[in-house]
Amino acid sequence: MERDSVGVGILGLGVIAGQVARVLRDRSGVLAGRVGCPLVLRKVKVLPDDLSRPQVKEMGAHLFTTDDEEFFTSPGIDIVVEAIGGEHPALEYLTRALSDGKHVVTSNKEVIAKHGAELLKLADQNGVVLRYEASVGGGIPLISRFRYDLVANRIEGIYAIINGTTNYILTRMAGEGADFSSVLARAQDLGYAEANPENDIEGIDAAYKLAILTSLAFHTEVRPEDIYHEGISRLSSRDFQYARELGFAIKLLAIAKESDGVVEARVHPVFIPEDSLLAKVNGVYNAVLVEGDLVDKVLFFGQGAGPLPTSSAVIADVVSAAQDVLRGISGGVRWELGPGKVIKPMSDIETSYYLRLNIADRPGILAQIAKALGDRQISISSAIQKLADRVAQTAEIVIITYPALEKSMQSALGELGRLSGVKEVSNLVRVEAL
Amino acid sequence: MERDSVGVGILGLGVIAGQVARVLRDRSGVLAGRVGCPLVLRKVKVLPDDLSRPQVKEMGAHLFTTDDEEFFTSPGIDIVVEAIGGEHPALEYLTRALSDGKHVVTSNKEVIAKHGAELLKLADQNGVVLRYEASVGGGIPLISRFRYDLVANRIEGIYAIINGTTNYILTRMAGEGADFSSVLARAQDLGYAEANPENDIEGIDAAYKLAILTSLAFHTEVRPEDIYHEGISRLSSRDFQYARELGFAIKLLAIAKESDGVVEARVHPVFIPEDSLLAKVNGVYNAVLVEGDLVDKVLFFGQGAGPLPTSSAVIADVVSAAQDVLRGISGGVRWELGPGKVIKPMSDIETSYYLRLNIADRPGILAQIAKALGDRQISISSAIQKLADRVAQTAEIVIITYPALEKSMQSALGELGRLSGVKEVSNLVRVEAL
Repeated sequence: MERDSVGVGILGLGVIAGQVARVLRDRSGVLAGRVGCPLVLRKVKVLPDDLSRPQVKEMGAHLFTTDDEEFFTSPGIDIVVEAIGGEHPALEYLTRALSDGKHVVTSNKEVIAKHGAELLKLADQNGVVLRYEASVGGGIPLISRFRYDLVANRIEGIYAIINGTTNYILTRMAGEGADFSSVLARAQDLGYAEANPENDIEGIDAAYKLAILTSLAFHTEVRPEDIYHEGISRLSSRDFQYARELGFAIKLLAIAKESDGVVEARVHPVFIPEDSLLAKVNGVYNAVLVEGDLVDKVLFFGQGAGPLPTSSAVIADVVSAAQDVLRGISGGVRWELGPGKVIKPMSDIETSYYLRLNIADRPGILAQIAKALGDRQISISSAIQKLADRVAQTAEIVIITYPALEKSMQSALGELGRLSGVKEVSNLVRVEAL
Repeated sequence: MERDSVGVGILGLGVIAGQVARVLRDRSGVLAGRVGCPLVLRKVKVLPDDLSRPQVKEMGAHLFTTDDEEFFTSPGIDIVVEAIGGEHPALEYLTRALSDGKHVVTSNKEVIAKHGAELLKLADQNGVVLRYEASVGGGIPLISRFRYDLVANRIEGIYAIINGTTNYILTRMAGEGADFSSVLARAQDLGYAEANPENDIEGIDAAYKLAILTSLAFHTEVRPEDIYHEGISRLSSRDFQYARELGFAIKLLAIAKESDGVVEARVHPVFIPEDSLLAKVNGVYNAVLVEGDLVDKVLFFGQGAGPLPTSSAVIADVVSAAQDVLRGISGGVRWELGPGKVIKPMSDIETSYYLRLNIADRPGILAQIAKALGDRQISISSAIQKLADRVAQTAEIVIITYPALEKSMQSALGELGRLSGVKEVSNLVRVEAL
């Protein structure tokens, strides 16, 4: 069948969806050239409140509907773009679109992280493709790297800065010696952090994205709840000061590794060497370092969010889907998840640690601490006493350990808290060599 | 037609081709899973000398031939991998394979840089696809970024470290204060530089790669001879010392920009801010920074050469071609080059400059220099006098200019050389803010 256009429907009219609609209109000539025929926006499903947006008037009210049924039965929609975010009703919308035999492009990390495996299967069954490049890393091309470019590799590790809000906060804390709460407030003012910042600062958003990347990299379903996550709110300016003195930067990293069929996946603050590339990724930028057995290290860097970069990824997926539609290609390359792999519990991971303790400033305390650690096979790489407080007769001590088991360290923390000479275990941050 | 395998033929048995053959064999199970059926190596075309290689015995002599005709008429080859490099006979081989209706995967930057446009056209005419991800940046996914991921963007600039040999040499020179010639000799011993290093150190290899990237990014044919190239052999340890003092790193960059339909493309050493990401790309690693109007900056980093990374890119292309073969997809997405764009002559580019001069150590010389520059609308941003030599009564002066036209600077250089107080124009290096 000779086609003279490919039709697009958009769910939502938030900043992402609005920008996607704008690009489809403003670059219609260029995009038609890339696809081979015009991409025509047929319908946009919005909420009643959206109807008062200037964009609705600008683009013509006939394009918009608040009615699900009208949207899904509109004729000539080959590709559905979902940019409403969140789990529901996005899941139901995607399910319907795929079941109706429409290609789907989404920027929704939550729904893909939680339901990606079933949605991909549904797409396969209906001879269409579910594309979600924009769900992780905004404009940074990532998803297709695992599906195409790195396909010959055994992926060994992923180390990712994939939350711009936290990276902005950490960059400011490192640069200014400022406190977490004051920097967060500033980030909220600037629109870099939401009014309810929990998803970002507690590592939940990063865990969603890591679930998506890990499932792709290791060909197994890794669900967000399989991923340990710890946020950045416990980091203090003191930690940044010591990190700098010791030659480290502090980043919130999403880390996944596989060895011998066992997968580990976790999100938490990490000390990384200050001369590593990831340490140089500042502000709202994101970066993903992938280790493959053939490619060694590859790193992808860019803006991980924002309407313009995200629209770039959405449109790339739309163009790709439209090329398939035009060429009459039914279905995508089958993407098979292998059998479920063992997810290593957090207690079994092994890493080095930075430990900051407030102790009584008298002889013998370090020996007690060393014993508590040594009893659990945790060796000290370096220990530095800092900031003696003459009046309170306390001092701060900073310890970097050799690699040890997480459960050993957790047990040691309990013991340290019970030592009479230890006033407070002020912070524990994991250390990665990269 | 139901297929039970996809056949591959390889031209060459050098380090890349040998590694590709090894991956096809050692990962046959994984690759069959990705493709949907086995990838079968049917024939390898080698030179007579290659027949004594251990790999020939290991893989079975029946797979190998020294005869072109036998290779091209071997039954069951769907995909031809070319990894012999160089312009000829690679061009003739690719032309024949495409004309015969075979998909082609190549790692050959020279043949693509010089003949890419005609080969892509030939592939189109024959309903097959020419893939060349491995031709630039080894294992770093780059080519497909322009064809797919960045398709909605207007590309504004490319800044690339795409020659590992020169980046290794520059990294060592910066780190050790060593001379060019001694570091080159060491790089040759380590196999990082060839016995005849001209292609690398003079920027010719980088110009080939930039021609490929520029053609993709700006949808126009840019040929290697359109690209100004200047190598690294004139850099001295003195330049690195001053760069460091001034807060810069020195890199050999391949730079391309487009504005108002005019394209500039050039390869030469550049001073870049030491805190920029590209400044942190050391040793044999490569990195490509792309500026697009939607994505802002994205950067791709990894090993730009070597058999393992390059085989990763070749196999990715082979898998992609095989998926098309298996799904019965004829031809690729048409890749149209737009009308030829104007290539800006080097004399019209505008950039800042670092200028190192050996001058007579007496009053008034700087004023002469400033006048020679000022007469040509070149403003001085900073000027520092260095290293006075009491005996010779000379001094070194280092100048950083504001952006100026290349032709103005070249004219100024002529004038500076004629000034009685200027003993030598020791070096001129362009400066990019990034």
